[in-house]
Amino acid sequence: MIKDPVESLKEYVRCPSVSADSAYTDGLNAAREFAATQLKDLGFEVDIIETPKHPIILAERGTDPSWPCVLIYGHYDVQPADPFDLWSSPAFEPRIRDGRLFGRGAADNKGPQIVHMAALTNVLKKNPDLPLRIKYLIEGEEEIGSPSFKGFLNNYKDRLKADFVLVSDTGSPSPEQIVITTGLRGLVAFEVRMTGPKMDLHSGVHGGVVMNPLQALMDVCATLHSADGRVNVPGFYDAVLPVYKWEQEELSKLPTTLQEYQEFLGIPKFHCAEGYTPFEALRFGPTLEFNGIGGGYQGEGSKTVIPSEAFAKITCRLVPNQNAAEIANMVQKTIRERCPNSVTLEFTEAETGYPYLVVPPNRENTPADQPAILQKAFACSEKAVTSKFGSKPIYLREGGSIPIISDLKTVVGLDSLMIGLFTPHDNLHAPDESFHLGIMETAISAFEDFFVNLVT
Amino acid sequence: MIKDPVESLKEYVRCPSVSADSAYTDGLNAAREFAATQLKDLGFEVDIIETPKHPIILAERGTDPSWPCVLIYGHYDVQPADPFDLWSSPAFEPRIRDGRLFGRGAADNKGPQIVHMAALTNVLKKNPDLPLRIKYLIEGEEEIGSPSFKGFLNNYKDRLKADFVLVSDTGSPSPEQIVITTGLRGLVAFEVRMTGPKMDLHSGVHGGVVMNPLQALMDVCATLHSADGRVNVPGFYDAVLPVYKWEQEELSKLPTTLQEYQEFLGIPKFHCAEGYTPFEALRFGPTLEFNGIGGGYQGEGSKTVIPSEAFAKITCRLVPNQNAAEIANMVQKTIRERCPNSVTLEFTEAETGYPYLVVPPNRENTPADQPAILQKAFACSEKAVTSKFGSKPIYLREGGSIPIISDLKTVVGLDSLMIGLFTPHDNLHAPDESFHLGIMETAISAFEDFFVNLVT
Repeated sequence: MIKDPVESLKEYVRCPSVSADSAYTDGLNAAREFAATQLKDLGFEVDIIETPKHPIILAERGTDPSWPCVLIYGHYDVQPADPFDLWSSPAFEPRIRDGRLFGRGAADNKGPQIVHMAALTNVLKKNPDLPLRIKYLIEGEEEIGSPSFKGFLNNYKDRLKADFVLVSDTGSPSPEQIVITTGLRGLVAFEVRMTGPKMDLHSGVHGGVVMNPLQALMDVCATLHSADGRVNVPGFYDAVLPVYKWEQEELSKLPTTLQEYQEFLGIPKFHCAEGYTPFEALRFGPTLEFNGIGGGYQGEGSKTVIPSEAFAKITCRLVPNQNAAEIANMVQKTIRERCPNSVTLEFTEAETGYPYLVVPPNRENTPADQPAILQKAFACSEKAVTSKFGSKPIYLREGGSIPIISDLKTVVGLDSLMIGLFTPHDNLHAPDESFHLGIMETAISAFEDFFVNLVT
Repeated sequence: MIKDPVESLKEYVRCPSVSADSAYTDGLNAAREFAATQLKDLGFEVDIIETPKHPIILAERGTDPSWPCVLIYGHYDVQPADPFDLWSSPAFEPRIRDGRLFGRGAADNKGPQIVHMAALTNVLKKNPDLPLRIKYLIEGEEEIGSPSFKGFLNNYKDRLKADFVLVSDTGSPSPEQIVITTGLRGLVAFEVRMTGPKMDLHSGVHGGVVMNPLQALMDVCATLHSADGRVNVPGFYDAVLPVYKWEQEELSKLPTTLQEYQEFLGIPKFHCAEGYTPFEALRFGPTLEFNGIGGGYQGEGSKTVIPSEAFAKITCRLVPNQNAAEIANMVQKTIRERCPNSVTLEFTEAETGYPYLVVPPNRENTPADQPAILQKAFACSEKAVTSKFGSKPIYLREGGSIPIISDLKTVVGLDSLMIGLFTPHDNLHAPDESFHLGIMETAISAFEDFFVNLVT
């Protein structure tokens, strides 16, 4: 139960729930305990489900099967807060400045959870018998790729049945313009490692007879894009869904200009795959990125070594209807074919996440069998956002990935309504993360409308 | 004065004279003091010349200008010894096992210095008035690229005048087969750095519009070699001297087989520039190597980042008559021309060292004006090596670089006689460096012959 949303968010942020670092077990426990307590106070039956890593909160209110049922997803874990010295105030000591609450996790994802819970507090206070079933699923491993989620999903899929999923873990361009996210990119992630000589060699004594694994790696990686910026892997684009006209129209409503965006990035010019404008490329196009490369001497100055090993960390962002497992195979096969036989090649097993797309009602490609309750949820959210934020939401796919959203679709058959509550200024995953208190207040009020209208 | 060469070498090795690390100042001082003391005891006038970094020992015996004059070069500094845990016995606590003395610097370059000094001790004991002028130049920055050497050379070139330089800082294939090194490769070293966005970016939120600097770096670096293994930089090979017939003949005398060498390297196959066999490529061909590349996430697993920066550390090994400064310009110009304008490009200033070649007497391309005393030195060394080691030396260029050798040629006009005393099993620059005590004993006796014969 949330009496004072700002104080509650402070309390939640004070729990340092960094899932990537085992030193933060106490913080994870505290954050989970905080969230579970709020739900119990709101009248939920709360289960804590053990997993190989961090337990999952599974909670439920309402049992009448004739009521609509919403599954609210969130995560109680946060990104690591280092480098700590770049924070203006301590990461886990929330402070308010300029109408924002600063602290790790304030926006991702604790603030949006407080919004949902505060709205429910207000709604259930006025109408304790609200004819709405609500299931809560709050995990503790979102920031580390939800490794326990697939296992949990298979074991608990029956308990997760609902009409749709409600998520506020996506972004909007500004406090004045809310985006309802209609799609997410999928992900393939793996590392490639090439080995040349069995030990590092003196580049003078032995230079000229050995394929340098750094050279082999760069030669192969350089072939993975063509001059037009597209990914040069046979079949990579085959399953890419064309962008719909309504998506182009929604995109044109984005208030950000290209010039503003370029300045934000600090780049000399944009670089997009042919066939995509920058804003299209971000949301509708797949990518292959090198997230890290390394090998040989990393220190100051020079060391004349031919290194034994080189690596590249590669991720692809995938769009509907690319198949993550197939893309992983394609890319690895291509690398294998192009790798010279003067080095040896190894891959780590690819991690995969599938892209996701939900089409809002009344569009050219809305599925004919889209459930009425999902359509009602879209209508209610549009109405609530429009009336409280002052302008209609934009419906857009986002460049990021939340693989569990497509898992919930595939395994439980659920579509997701994703209402973005953080903005580019919230510094997600970076120092000085913050959550806009004006958005928080308005969003609480909008979600009150949403929950009430959904059952009216 | 060296009474017991093995004990003296132990004492020298016990001085941890790591020039790269300022924590080893005491060790450098101790090593310099050790070497200077031996020379004083041998009757040398010893000067310690201050430099911006580590002082140089400059010593002299004999003043009669009608005597031949040899300048003996060595270095009292050593490579860093880490990783320490890979040493079988502590790096700076010399131990004898299997006829070898183990310790950092035992072979590079303290053992060979002890050989020269021990031979002189024996020769001067029998003949204190040996009509040979000897100058000693022992520097303390060889392992960090001799940054103070050029300045020293300009200030002291008159005091360095001699008939030739004697160096034992090169290798031989085995204790049974000595190589007299006739050439050294030059060196160009610099770092290239490419910058994309002004900060690391989330590869989901921002992936698709930005030229990833890792990709730009790999795209450009991949163009620097062509499919035939040659360096793909216009003009790179223009000044390369053809290999002489006598060099091919000497090369054919090498006792090592390709198969043995491949096993030593642990590579699936050799990779050489077209036009060179493996053993030719090592000694007669130029290279462009990547000694280190880096950028983005380096830890375990994956982090979905588009990094802001990427770097590559590049060195070229040059052969006569490539001009190091010109090659540096060529390579950087080529990189600049091929770098996409979607990233920014920076270079560190290139460090350069010039290749060196001395042709022994009586070869097809021996200079007509080669000084008689240098020819005598070659003849004396061949005679001494043949009689003491049991087989004629092989005359070969080496793949490594000792830039000061070409500096001494250019600035003071001196050629070098380089008699290799370490072997591939000595683990130079690596853990468990050692010096072969059999070579040491035989070499002392050979150098006694050499010094005596030179003035006979």
